[in-house]
Amino acid sequence: MDLASIGAIDGGGCARLALTDEDAAGRDLVVGWMHELGMTVTTDVIGNVIGTWNVGEGSPVMTGSHIDTVRTGGKYDGNLGVLAGLEVVQTLQEASYVPPRPISVGIFTNEEGSRFAPDMLGSLVYVGGLAIEEALDIIGIDGARVGDELERIGYNGATPCPGFAPHAFVELHIEQGPVLEKTNVLIGAVTGVQGISWQEVTITGQSNHAGTTPMNMRRDPSYVAAKIAVFLRDLADRYGGHQVCTVGKIDLFPNLVNVIPAKAVMTLDVRNTEEEILRQAEMEIADFITSLSQEENVVITTRQLARFEPVVFHPQVIDIVERVSTSHSPTVVRMPSGAGHDAQMFARVCPSAMIFVPSVEGISHNAAEFTEPEDMVLGTNILLQVLVELSHIEDFDS
Amino acid sequence: MDLASIGAIDGGGCARLALTDEDAAGRDLVVGWMHELGMTVTTDVIGNVIGTWNVGEGSPVMTGSHIDTVRTGGKYDGNLGVLAGLEVVQTLQEASYVPPRPISVGIFTNEEGSRFAPDMLGSLVYVGGLAIEEALDIIGIDGARVGDELERIGYNGATPCPGFAPHAFVELHIEQGPVLEKTNVLIGAVTGVQGISWQEVTITGQSNHAGTTPMNMRRDPSYVAAKIAVFLRDLADRYGGHQVCTVGKIDLFPNLVNVIPAKAVMTLDVRNTEEEILRQAEMEIADFITSLSQEENVVITTRQLARFEPVVFHPQVIDIVERVSTSHSPTVVRMPSGAGHDAQMFARVCPSAMIFVPSVEGISHNAAEFTEPEDMVLGTNILLQVLVELSHIEDFDS
Repeated sequence: MDLASIGAIDGGGCARLALTDEDAAGRDLVVGWMHELGMTVTTDVIGNVIGTWNVGEGSPVMTGSHIDTVRTGGKYDGNLGVLAGLEVVQTLQEASYVPPRPISVGIFTNEEGSRFAPDMLGSLVYVGGLAIEEALDIIGIDGARVGDELERIGYNGATPCPGFAPHAFVELHIEQGPVLEKTNVLIGAVTGVQGISWQEVTITGQSNHAGTTPMNMRRDPSYVAAKIAVFLRDLADRYGGHQVCTVGKIDLFPNLVNVIPAKAVMTLDVRNTEEEILRQAEMEIADFITSLSQEENVVITTRQLARFEPVVFHPQVIDIVERVSTSHSPTVVRMPSGAGHDAQMFARVCPSAMIFVPSVEGISHNAAEFTEPEDMVLGTNILLQVLVELSHIEDFDS
Repeated sequence: MDLASIGAIDGGGCARLALTDEDAAGRDLVVGWMHELGMTVTTDVIGNVIGTWNVGEGSPVMTGSHIDTVRTGGKYDGNLGVLAGLEVVQTLQEASYVPPRPISVGIFTNEEGSRFAPDMLGSLVYVGGLAIEEALDIIGIDGARVGDELERIGYNGATPCPGFAPHAFVELHIEQGPVLEKTNVLIGAVTGVQGISWQEVTITGQSNHAGTTPMNMRRDPSYVAAKIAVFLRDLADRYGGHQVCTVGKIDLFPNLVNVIPAKAVMTLDVRNTEEEILRQAEMEIADFITSLSQEENVVITTRQLARFEPVVFHPQVIDIVERVSTSHSPTVVRMPSGAGHDAQMFARVCPSAMIFVPSVEGISHNAAEFTEPEDMVLGTNILLQVLVELSHIEDFDS
């Protein structure tokens, strides 16, 4: 709640866009807590802050998340994962239990991507997915440069990127979706992150008078956009499983009641946990668009806005999360994440997984975001035991 | 072309919004031409200008249209009907042919409705469909009041409204649609004006993350809007005949690629020449919306934006238009108008009809609006003979 008071917005939410004064104040507060716990704190060249307890031999088991928020963010998204990591360290210290490996808690820069694209920037640079020089030169929505803003707020650290590979990485996060709550399950053992295919579809037809143009002479982009949106829903229903499809954006031009539009621009968000199925969905959509363009005599062009293959977490780490969860919670489910998280970047360099706790009504990126305190306690207790068990593992299954 | 030079815009079009300086300059030019033809010119309290030739006993046969345009208007919409009327008078004068009744040519105020709602305001007030006091108090999109603007441009006339009922009314107009050109027909004998039903449909669902919300937990306004748009097309195809349906406007909120919208607002434009069929279409749409709202668990509200019953022109006048057209043109078709026109107001008070000439590519309300000069000549010759024949008729069939 102290952290949430920084950048507080109406309705109980937070606005701490990455590398703003609010983000800096939040970082200062959390770094202070790391110091109170006697952790060794380093800041790297992209501003990721890593607090490590029990520095010694061997690579640490790492947890953590982010404390930047979207402009209309809640208190829990990201923040829970960072603060739960500190809670784990404090609890182990109070119990005088020293695990065999160091425990690190990371605060990763610009996870939300609301100010600077891409999202998950800090963890991406950490694992070597983007060169630091490129990252520092990114310009934000307000014209600010990442490198300049890091310097301005004093988080332009010296630790190089890519950083050391942790022994393992586990992130606790709110689900940001309705599945756990709606199915009365308390804990999600996250198996991976859905692959994402974003397309922008532009349909060019013939603008005409809505009264004077007979149906058989129309080349109507609005109708074509509607057919595509209905096709996407039908495809998702037909595929079942973890297939989701969304048309979140439609713009008609000129967008007037009595004018058949000249043009429609829409976005397609298609996700699946299986790369093969995602490709099949993309192909089916492309075929449908082609036949539809001929049928209605319109020109349809598509532009890929984003494409990420699904991420599969480490089976052994997922097993540990599931087993530990089952010992703490009556209800546990294996589930993929529909949203992106820092853990998916760490999956490139070390055995990784995630723990989900429920989001009330599935609401996130909204001041009304809420997770019951007892669910956060449950998730944090599970995180503690998972981190400790991981620190005992010498070699992971390959 | 002289009239089109007033308020000229790029691409050959005109911007002469009603009661602006441009409209006033256009009126001054045309009124000057009326005076040159020796016509008696009156201006009424809503600014309609009526030029009458051969003032004498008996009510005149009237033609005319409007010279105001939409902001991105063409040269022909409305203007053709006014200038053709003057051409008829000039031609009859040059031939020294004096028909048995006076011939009046009207310039009707604010037909387009682009600056002041409703459209066809001048002819509506002329026929007593709206009280003059109400009409003068209408406030435009720019905050201006009709009465003040009439006074400002000097067209606040003294002739009272409702005005005298003409003996008959026939308007020559461009089709503003593609039917004549696409079917290689030169003249349309207009049988009436389609009834219009405009609705705004607001769909309220649940905004959610496009990745984390399974399909079966969605309450997606975007999908519902798409289903309605597809249903409208299917309905129009099923009904056939003169049924047309258009979704010209869709707004999603927040309209982002990765967010299931909270809300969709769309418009439905449904038209038919038969009131009974139009009502049936409205009922089918309402039933579909109800079942869809239950299926997707969304709240759907509808608001009527406009509703006009179909207008049927006078059979005897239509017959005359068709017969005269057939004697001048190899190709004539009876057809309804999909757009509203001043003639539909006069149909309330006297036998009325219209003559259509082709619009190239059906384009109108656009600088590219075009009608071949020879087609305008043909239409004007037909108008002349129709007006003369009407002036010979003592009593119309009831």
